[in-house]
Amino acid sequence: MSDRPETPLLDTVQYPADIRKLDREKLSQLADELRQEVISAVSVTGGHLGAGLGVVELTVALHYVFNTPDDKLIWDVGHQAYPHKIVTGRRDRIRTLRQGGGLSGFTRRSESEYDPFGAAHSSTSISAALGFAIANKLAHQSGKAIAVIGDGAMSAGMAYEAMNNAAAAGNRLVVILNDNDMSIAPPVGSLRNALARLVSSSKYLAPRKLAQKLARAMPEPLHRTARRVEEYARGLFTGGTLFDELGFYYVGPVDGHDVEALVEVLENVRDADIGPMLVHVVTHKGKGYGPAENSADKYHGVVKFDVVSGKQDKGPGGGPPSYQNVFGETLAKLAETDSRICAITAAMPSGTGVDKFAAAHPERAFDVGIAEQHGVTFAAGLAAQGMRPFVAIYSTFLQRAYDQVVHDVAIQNLPVRFAMDRAGLVGADGATHAGSFDLAYLCTLPNFVVMAAADEVELVNMVHTMALHDSGPIAVRYPRGEGRGIALPETPQALEIGKGRIVRQGSKVAILSLGTRLAEAEKAADQLEAKGLSTTVADLRFAKPLDEALIRKLLTTHEVAVTIEEASIGGLGAHVLTMASDEGLTDAGLKIRTMRLPDAFQEHDKPEKQYDEAHLNAPHIVEMVLKALRVNSAGVEEVRA
Amino acid sequence: MSDRPETPLLDTVQYPADIRKLDREKLSQLADELRQEVISAVSVTGGHLGAGLGVVELTVALHYVFNTPDDKLIWDVGHQAYPHKIVTGRRDRIRTLRQGGGLSGFTRRSESEYDPFGAAHSSTSISAALGFAIANKLAHQSGKAIAVIGDGAMSAGMAYEAMNNAAAAGNRLVVILNDNDMSIAPPVGSLRNALARLVSSSKYLAPRKLAQKLARAMPEPLHRTARRVEEYARGLFTGGTLFDELGFYYVGPVDGHDVEALVEVLENVRDADIGPMLVHVVTHKGKGYGPAENSADKYHGVVKFDVVSGKQDKGPGGGPPSYQNVFGETLAKLAETDSRICAITAAMPSGTGVDKFAAAHPERAFDVGIAEQHGVTFAAGLAAQGMRPFVAIYSTFLQRAYDQVVHDVAIQNLPVRFAMDRAGLVGADGATHAGSFDLAYLCTLPNFVVMAAADEVELVNMVHTMALHDSGPIAVRYPRGEGRGIALPETPQALEIGKGRIVRQGSKVAILSLGTRLAEAEKAADQLEAKGLSTTVADLRFAKPLDEALIRKLLTTHEVAVTIEEASIGGLGAHVLTMASDEGLTDAGLKIRTMRLPDAFQEHDKPEKQYDEAHLNAPHIVEMVLKALRVNSAGVEEVRA
Repeated sequence: MSDRPETPLLDTVQYPADIRKLDREKLSQLADELRQEVISAVSVTGGHLGAGLGVVELTVALHYVFNTPDDKLIWDVGHQAYPHKIVTGRRDRIRTLRQGGGLSGFTRRSESEYDPFGAAHSSTSISAALGFAIANKLAHQSGKAIAVIGDGAMSAGMAYEAMNNAAAAGNRLVVILNDNDMSIAPPVGSLRNALARLVSSSKYLAPRKLAQKLARAMPEPLHRTARRVEEYARGLFTGGTLFDELGFYYVGPVDGHDVEALVEVLENVRDADIGPMLVHVVTHKGKGYGPAENSADKYHGVVKFDVVSGKQDKGPGGGPPSYQNVFGETLAKLAETDSRICAITAAMPSGTGVDKFAAAHPERAFDVGIAEQHGVTFAAGLAAQGMRPFVAIYSTFLQRAYDQVVHDVAIQNLPVRFAMDRAGLVGADGATHAGSFDLAYLCTLPNFVVMAAADEVELVNMVHTMALHDSGPIAVRYPRGEGRGIALPETPQALEIGKGRIVRQGSKVAILSLGTRLAEAEKAADQLEAKGLSTTVADLRFAKPLDEALIRKLLTTHEVAVTIEEASIGGLGAHVLTMASDEGLTDAGLKIRTMRLPDAFQEHDKPEKQYDEAHLNAPHIVEMVLKALRVNSAGVEEVRA
Repeated sequence: MSDRPETPLLDTVQYPADIRKLDREKLSQLADELRQEVISAVSVTGGHLGAGLGVVELTVALHYVFNTPDDKLIWDVGHQAYPHKIVTGRRDRIRTLRQGGGLSGFTRRSESEYDPFGAAHSSTSISAALGFAIANKLAHQSGKAIAVIGDGAMSAGMAYEAMNNAAAAGNRLVVILNDNDMSIAPPVGSLRNALARLVSSSKYLAPRKLAQKLARAMPEPLHRTARRVEEYARGLFTGGTLFDELGFYYVGPVDGHDVEALVEVLENVRDADIGPMLVHVVTHKGKGYGPAENSADKYHGVVKFDVVSGKQDKGPGGGPPSYQNVFGETLAKLAETDSRICAITAAMPSGTGVDKFAAAHPERAFDVGIAEQHGVTFAAGLAAQGMRPFVAIYSTFLQRAYDQVVHDVAIQNLPVRFAMDRAGLVGADGATHAGSFDLAYLCTLPNFVVMAAADEVELVNMVHTMALHDSGPIAVRYPRGEGRGIALPETPQALEIGKGRIVRQGSKVAILSLGTRLAEAEKAADQLEAKGLSTTVADLRFAKPLDEALIRKLLTTHEVAVTIEEASIGGLGAHVLTMASDEGLTDAGLKIRTMRLPDAFQEHDKPEKQYDEAHLNAPHIVEMVLKALRVNSAGVEEVRA
């Protein structure tokens, strides 16, 4: 726990209307106090710190100039919105960030009218803002929509699609490009180079001076040709022509930490009537907090920390390796003797473990930026030319490339390998980051092989199995966090496609597990055995193709069978039931139950609480079995109704 | 049938190597003959005509200059590849285009080594080409990859993501921008305006002259600053700066119907060593065939036609209206009294029926271009601001926006309405266009309501139901083609959410139908009744939420129940089985079967043949019921094994 900072001016601000009452000379002090409050709060809760610190002045300036919540302020991703939350009526709950029952780590419509559009995945803000702007236009209302989007998020195709359509919004749309020269990872791509040029260039003019010059120049509509000439001349220095080309009036760069300059430019932008405008604001991630500024990742995501030293409370360490690192290190090792293996990440080299691969094989590691669609089809092209590409994308983000998975990979039956990290529940990141749907959306696709790793040894073997599988697409899902602490094999073992394994053999109850719920299945088996119910536990390993022989045997030789998976309806359970029905196994009676994630988006919380809420822990398995057998908790059969 | 044209020079060409033997002065004649052959073939088969006619010279030039198939030539979408097919060993089968067992209407890897990457959905070619180029780079091979992409396809974010990553490919990557100023619909978006400027501008230089000037200038690497100045100066005239900004060396515009100019420029591009290059080629859709050039859609997709008159063989006409038009007209009518209704299409105004809506309510119709991701989140923004947006996207193309459906619509529970045309099998367009997966990928999402229309009257009522449903997302699926010819209601009726209907009541067999297989279910019921098997037919209407009361009753009061849907595994059948198992209905014995699309990508063919292959016609339902009941085809019970 840290001492609370002194924040006399911030204490007078509960809502943006309170900011608007202040003299603009006071805004700098307000920003300083707001920054201290953010640091203090996140030191207690953990969470995203660097991004929020970079936009403190921008947050103050935006609420000062625009008439929120009538003007709609949409933060892209939303993990930079902590300061925004503090000044929009949520300061009293800011130390509950990302805790169960507390504030979300992202923007959320249900939390505040100042969050008009929730987020968490990147690059949605311009599209959403355009929706608000057009709705206002149709209703002849004057409200504006302001999207604040980072330079990294601009690499996603979705942002480009939105910009290409923005002209229809006229002056109701404002896009703030928050250029901090670093999204999660160091920036990639040509667009990034164009942006980088401007801050690194010797031709770079003092931002404030330029901003003022442009602010003065804006309100008068310029002659068309003259404006075009001016655009290109400006483009030589600023790289803004990309946006001009897409129909925006580009303004910038502006120093994002000079709150008065920001206010001046934003006021001009607000009052200008020359179509959609893009304001290029240069900020520094982690700004104003030494330990963050000096850290390589600018304290992008942190655990609790000491404010004075910046030291993060990372626990004792020495625990089991994370799944992501097991993946990255296994792949790097396999690539030593297999020159065809490549790894692709979409702006998450460290989160996916691809950084481990890249360190060993830099020429075969590809960070495509926030561009999942391109990443998957790029991998399909690599596979078509004989490479063995591994696409490492979180389960939830692979949704961004679903059509590419179907159209470019599955229909062509190309051997692209998918490593789906963060499958299942993810804790504090909440519903937007949960990997709930991958089994449903992949197992429905012809040609696909879909695996789930029950532990880190299984993951090693599955990665090896994937490398060898050249006959079509193959995917593995595995969870966020650390493994079970089992020793990893010296030599990985190739698994037979579509074959599960019996983990323990019983006779009355069969638990068919897929993925890391296996540990709970084994616990449940212990408890069932203690009640005199002999229990088989199987790890199916494959959601597609199913091990039909094994499943048939388990269903027909046990009194009750339960499937369990950390996935939505439509996954393993649905496919096992479909197989059973196809074969007529239900005709004469079949006690089978499926355990899965609930049909609801689960709120952020501690993972163990989320599992409890989802009814996916050992006691729930036991309860499900007893209920199906109509025996009470002592193991005694109940009288049938 | 048309007479075959005289094609003495084309007759000497079976493969591209034969083209490369020709003097370049002969290429123009070859192109003329190739054009006549394309017209002749498509007059017999129907298919995409305008796009192919626009790239005849480009096809000849590309194969003349590049070393296909070692150099990889990737046609975006692939519907313009008919001339390519003719000169790559498939001329003898060109009159089987889009017929069962014949050539595909798109490029396909399984068809020819000259099709290195199959397509059909738009905007994948640059990503795939980058994959080939990088694989060659890693293998120290010299082969190039050439993507040919239309101006419409450039509006998709995926193309932008790929361009933003292209620098890594160096001179192994060439992108040909085929600018015909019209993809399927008139072009939209600011990018399109930038492209249009150049051909319409008075500053437009004669393409050939400019191309020659640039071709001469290219090979010598230019000083960095000088090049940048030159880029922008050029940008004033050509609009090419967008591509320069993304890291391409832009060349153009080039007259796409001057084959010798094309060869000259492409040779320079092939031999240049200054990174990835983009060649801007201006073509005319339908070029060289009067009736196509004079038609509004340039004969984009045609049925059989008479070569001399251009008259298409559209049959007697006067049949039932198509589902797309029923949708568009119904929505237009509802919008007369509901000012909140909007319609969004992604470059398919006519295919989706949104053109009917746009004609009546132009200010509330939005064609976002080939930008499904943006379109969905834009709609979410509209909904968040109180509008009632209908997103009309084919089932297969909605896959492009799956994450936006999950993250921006479902998680926020926003009332976006999805009209999913082309659900199920689609005939000649084949597997890439089949709408097989929407039930699996939508029904797994919390908060979603998912309907399927059994006929055009149901569709009218469902569109009305959707308009009134403000509590969350709702979708309706309906097939390609015409309705059943039932009179449409004067006043549409609102359906109760999650309630199905009994179409006919029986006692022994229950058929639970979802969508347009209902007609076959009714036929099957007639045949079963004739065998003495009393049959109930239900139209469930809702795949989510299920009508649990109705389903429970049908399952428990009939001897056998069969679900039928025109969708992959993971849809209705899987959800009904899951519900039955959750409730313990299988415990004491339950004869239930699910009928669905096979776990395979079905080849293009006549729809009736595809249904037969999928086992989704009335005889298959009868067979499934008899087999489950273990009675023979005369209705007599078999001795149990």
